[in-house]
Amino acid sequence: MHIINIGNELLFGKTINTNAAFIADKLTETGIEIKKSIVIADNPVTILKTIADCFKETDWIITTGGLGPTKDDMTKNVIAQYFDVGFEVHQATLETVVKMFADRGLEVNEINRKQAEVPVGAIVLPNKNGTAPGLWLEKNGKTLIALQGVPFEMQAILVESVIPLLKQKYKSAHAVVHKNILTSGVGESLLAQKIENWENALPADITLAYLPSPGQVLLRLTARANDETTATQLIENQLPDLLKIIQPYLVSTEGETLVEVVSKLLKKNKKKLAIAESCTGGYISHLITSLSGSSQFFEGAIVSYSNEIKQDILNVRETNLKKYGAVSEMVVTDMALNTMSLFETDYAIATSGIAGPSGGTEEKPIGLVWVAIATPTRVVTQKFLFGKNGGREVIIKRAAMAALNMLRIELLKDVGCSSVS
Amino acid sequence: MHIINIGNELLFGKTINTNAAFIADKLTETGIEIKKSIVIADNPVTILKTIADCFKETDWIITTGGLGPTKDDMTKNVIAQYFDVGFEVHQATLETVVKMFADRGLEVNEINRKQAEVPVGAIVLPNKNGTAPGLWLEKNGKTLIALQGVPFEMQAILVESVIPLLKQKYKSAHAVVHKNILTSGVGESLLAQKIENWENALPADITLAYLPSPGQVLLRLTARANDETTATQLIENQLPDLLKIIQPYLVSTEGETLVEVVSKLLKKNKKKLAIAESCTGGYISHLITSLSGSSQFFEGAIVSYSNEIKQDILNVRETNLKKYGAVSEMVVTDMALNTMSLFETDYAIATSGIAGPSGGTEEKPIGLVWVAIATPTRVVTQKFLFGKNGGREVIIKRAAMAALNMLRIELLKDVGCSSVS
Repeated sequence: MHIINIGNELLFGKTINTNAAFIADKLTETGIEIKKSIVIADNPVTILKTIADCFKETDWIITTGGLGPTKDDMTKNVIAQYFDVGFEVHQATLETVVKMFADRGLEVNEINRKQAEVPVGAIVLPNKNGTAPGLWLEKNGKTLIALQGVPFEMQAILVESVIPLLKQKYKSAHAVVHKNILTSGVGESLLAQKIENWENALPADITLAYLPSPGQVLLRLTARANDETTATQLIENQLPDLLKIIQPYLVSTEGETLVEVVSKLLKKNKKKLAIAESCTGGYISHLITSLSGSSQFFEGAIVSYSNEIKQDILNVRETNLKKYGAVSEMVVTDMALNTMSLFETDYAIATSGIAGPSGGTEEKPIGLVWVAIATPTRVVTQKFLFGKNGGREVIIKRAAMAALNMLRIELLKDVGCSSVS
Repeated sequence: MHIINIGNELLFGKTINTNAAFIADKLTETGIEIKKSIVIADNPVTILKTIADCFKETDWIITTGGLGPTKDDMTKNVIAQYFDVGFEVHQATLETVVKMFADRGLEVNEINRKQAEVPVGAIVLPNKNGTAPGLWLEKNGKTLIALQGVPFEMQAILVESVIPLLKQKYKSAHAVVHKNILTSGVGESLLAQKIENWENALPADITLAYLPSPGQVLLRLTARANDETTATQLIENQLPDLLKIIQPYLVSTEGETLVEVVSKLLKKNKKKLAIAESCTGGYISHLITSLSGSSQFFEGAIVSYSNEIKQDILNVRETNLKKYGAVSEMVVTDMALNTMSLFETDYAIATSGIAGPSGGTEEKPIGLVWVAIATPTRVVTQKFLFGKNGGREVIIKRAAMAALNMLRIELLKDVGCSSVS
């Protein structure tokens, strides 16, 4: 399988090509190997030549980009030209487009209407997030799958339409099975050191990848075998020893994110949460409210970006602010306890830190973050020194993950590990 | 110029290819056009064939990856094979390697010593962050520049050695100048329709790209000419007419984001902001606090995820909640006004909506969002119907962008357009 990403913006380097990684990741999980991935300009001659060149090396191509309504979107025409077919109106797409505009109180113009035209003979891959559909064309043993350049449109079509069709039509040489193991609270190199012996003893048909992100390391085990059962068994054989070593840091083996694990614990045990965010500035609340159903356990948050707000709304004691400063154990403790009582919840998170790039001192450097977790019976605090590597954005993310992981650990103490399935 | 990124991890989709974007961005700034960017596996046959194929289309190739000391690093051998040369020890590199190991109390082994071997005739590009240097080879009018796969090693060599050498040796056919124009509050297809006549009349040496993201469309004009002055002038000639048409939606022509423009307006005019977030759940606060210096104008926010919190902390009138529901003009108005007075600010944003995927009704469908902006003299409200496309995440982003854009418009009314530089 080759990937062709079409778009001038990718060649100018202003837009990072996340589409290639997303597609490659999903196809690799399905057991399909990507042999080459190419980025080219929105130029019909280049697009046509690249498609023709790739089809000399492979029977399968996925393209992204150039399916939209504007003048710089020319993939659809080029594909029709390559497959030597004309266009026909796809009635269901036209109806979707008309309805989508009607829902938003808008009328359909000629440009939108054109989006319902598809190359004759194409399998239409519905685009629930936009107007132009994805397209699947086959001829003489060659298959071209044309998807959107807009990531969320492309991703939905890939997962919902392309992967299921590929499973029917693509004959894979071998089965590939992955297992994702999410850890938090341990750095990549320390984790690597801890599991070094286990890793060195892995059989040749299993590979391990470290996928670090701020505050987390995802371990991905990949097994290859003639069939899925054998590949799954290969992983199952190795898993118990690994999980024993990484137990203190283990968040999930079920593909859940840290915030999903915390949410599940709260929901399952009918506990309520509120948050006081200083240095994280709303990011933890955003992570939680991005999950549907979070209103079942999340009451709300106060982003307190000034000392006055900490005092006036969060009732942080003025003496503590003066004596210890806003970034201190005493102040995050006040914040957590008062947030819990203000929102009448069972748990509260509070963060205060120096995200930089300015504001650091020798005593309180950039990257210093205090986190407090208030529970029904106690307040737990922890001091983090994240350093300034990666800048403001990474410090905010690390602080958020550290706080969520602390809450996860306290929740497990209170409700028992066995209550999470 | 073609880019070839070599590395299995890029084809598996586990690592996002930021190297291609970094190189493309730097070269585009230098006026060098990237025609194609290819990712391939660590396989000598594939590497050799790809280099040969690319040299049929271009005289210039930059590769990344495969220069390290381990078994799967094979780029250096393949290059020597392509250019048909042997290896020689590069004395300065050997000394650096020996010293680097001596500093750490280690002796140099055979594998390390090999890193000082370079293809005969190569220009050596020093790597201050690692052991293996970058390589620059020329033959029969073809130039290949081989760089590291590790981003920070590659980036330093590119900026410090490659760009200066390219400026001497690369004869650019033309200069390329870009201009980014950010719009908000108008969809891609409606915008395309509005500027259709202007776009059709563009001269052939200017191209226009539409780069949409939730709530925003970035227009990118690219001009090509013999020199930079002419290219810049080409864009300047077209700009006034475009800006006149898109005036109601124009956010920035200076490469700033919407939240940066809003921040600048608040800072410059010494105005304070607070936010009440219901459906956006902390996302607007996160966008603002991701900017360094936001504490100068941002007092804080309340994420009110339940009716009780809206009543108890935000003082939303119970009668309004009962009569109109939480997602209503009356409730967001209460939220905005009370947040402004609670935080003692000049402006306040309030959002309330149905982000889905559950909770929609016929009267209040998923994607319905009410936004209120409280200013020193008035409250402005607006109802949005974002539909359910893209799901929860996209509705949250669209609502955040719509709210920030409304605030921007009100700020401009109050402080005058001329006060933004």
